[in-house]
Amino acid sequence: MLGILGGMGPLATVDFLAKLVAADEAETDQQHMPFIVRAVPQIPDRSRYITEGGENPLPALRLGMRELGRAGASVVAIPCNTAHYWYSSLVGPDLPEILHIVDAVADRLAEVLPEGGPIAILSTQGTHAARVYENRLDQVRWPIAESTGPEIAAVGQGITLVKAGRLDAARAIFAQAVDAHRERGAKAVILACTEIPAALNEPDPFLIDATQALALRCVRWFRETHHGFPPAMTRPLRAAS
Amino acid sequence: MLGILGGMGPLATVDFLAKLVAADEAETDQQHMPFIVRAVPQIPDRSRYITEGGENPLPALRLGMRELGRAGASVVAIPCNTAHYWYSSLVGPDLPEILHIVDAVADRLAEVLPEGGPIAILSTQGTHAARVYENRLDQVRWPIAESTGPEIAAVGQGITLVKAGRLDAARAIFAQAVDAHRERGAKAVILACTEIPAALNEPDPFLIDATQALALRCVRWFRETHHGFPPAMTRPLRAAS
Repeated sequence: MLGILGGMGPLATVDFLAKLVAADEAETDQQHMPFIVRAVPQIPDRSRYITEGGENPLPALRLGMRELGRAGASVVAIPCNTAHYWYSSLVGPDLPEILHIVDAVADRLAEVLPEGGPIAILSTQGTHAARVYENRLDQVRWPIAESTGPEIAAVGQGITLVKAGRLDAARAIFAQAVDAHRERGAKAVILACTEIPAALNEPDPFLIDATQALALRCVRWFRETHHGFPPAMTRPLRAAS
Repeated sequence: MLGILGGMGPLATVDFLAKLVAADEAETDQQHMPFIVRAVPQIPDRSRYITEGGENPLPALRLGMRELGRAGASVVAIPCNTAHYWYSSLVGPDLPEILHIVDAVADRLAEVLPEGGPIAILSTQGTHAARVYENRLDQVRWPIAESTGPEIAAVGQGITLVKAGRLDAARAIFAQAVDAHRERGAKAVILACTEIPAALNEPDPFLIDATQALALRCVRWFRETHHGFPPAMTRPLRAAS
């Protein structure tokens, strides 16, 4: 069964779940994929730890992974890009496998930008400083364009606004960052913090929503494995998924 | 911690979670209430069992309650009105307490219709046949107006459409039922199936969304108990909640 390590933040978790259920097209309740969510937002701030220090979120992340495994999760999606900084510390024989969000984004890039080209990343300061995308994405194919220091700080401020429910103010900040990258020649911009699409939610083929990419990856995992349910309970993988 | 017995259906669960996080206003992730969700939609159809027989969903419901308890839930919300038919079989010393959805609706009625008066219920045929609302709501204060057989069948059809993602077709059916009750003198209409507000989502003071009522009840529970977190991690109960 799919587990979701959520609460980072709670709104981003709901946004991910909405995308998951929408991607998992089904006619009846019983055909939908099962999942369990642990949304315990009392996990120390990921981005702050990476950029400033303080309480390490790793023990809380490990606890969440263990609890999801105990509750029946065999794979886990983490709708928080920054948390993937701790990915290598969350892999182990006692823990469910993680469907890595950067791999999910790479799957989407292979579909929408198969010819490759420069891309840009909008993320928390923590995701940026930890080089979560830089260290895992194929940069020969999709080189990551630099963001300026003030751009990185502004996006971080926008993310804080989303967490406080101030979506309109956040939207303006994100749109400005997207426009700047478009003008400098990026072929796509990755919304690489799960809070960003909660504000920047207009469809735009220039934008790749990491949350949406992760949801599609989860549905594909379910279709491929049937997760132990009889095949009759799942539908064939559609071309669009 | 709050547990959510979800998956009935998956879209309704996401709608409930969105309302829960919105009602739980907070400035940072860490101030938000923690919750765990078990959304395993392979629970036999509740409404069909009540109206036609077949596989009893009770064992799957009990399993879900036990698993939530094992995962740390001390109270459970069930965003499925029909499932409350089994409420008395889901109460026991080995199971977390259920925040009953009809009690949550009664709380809302006490706020918006304190003078009392006739109300109407839009629900699945199962919720209607099982008299989930009739058996628990104070009908001296809020007498429940009859729905006709064709009205009950039409709403049931609309709910099936929501589960299949056909929201526009469902919306038209629900709007017609609401208008009929308004003309016959109801003072409020309860959207008493968690699929209905997923389609009928325009604000209307005449409508009481049972999903929203349950979300508000959960936030109130969290604020009242602090769920073992230090009071500093929660904010005071605001007048609006």
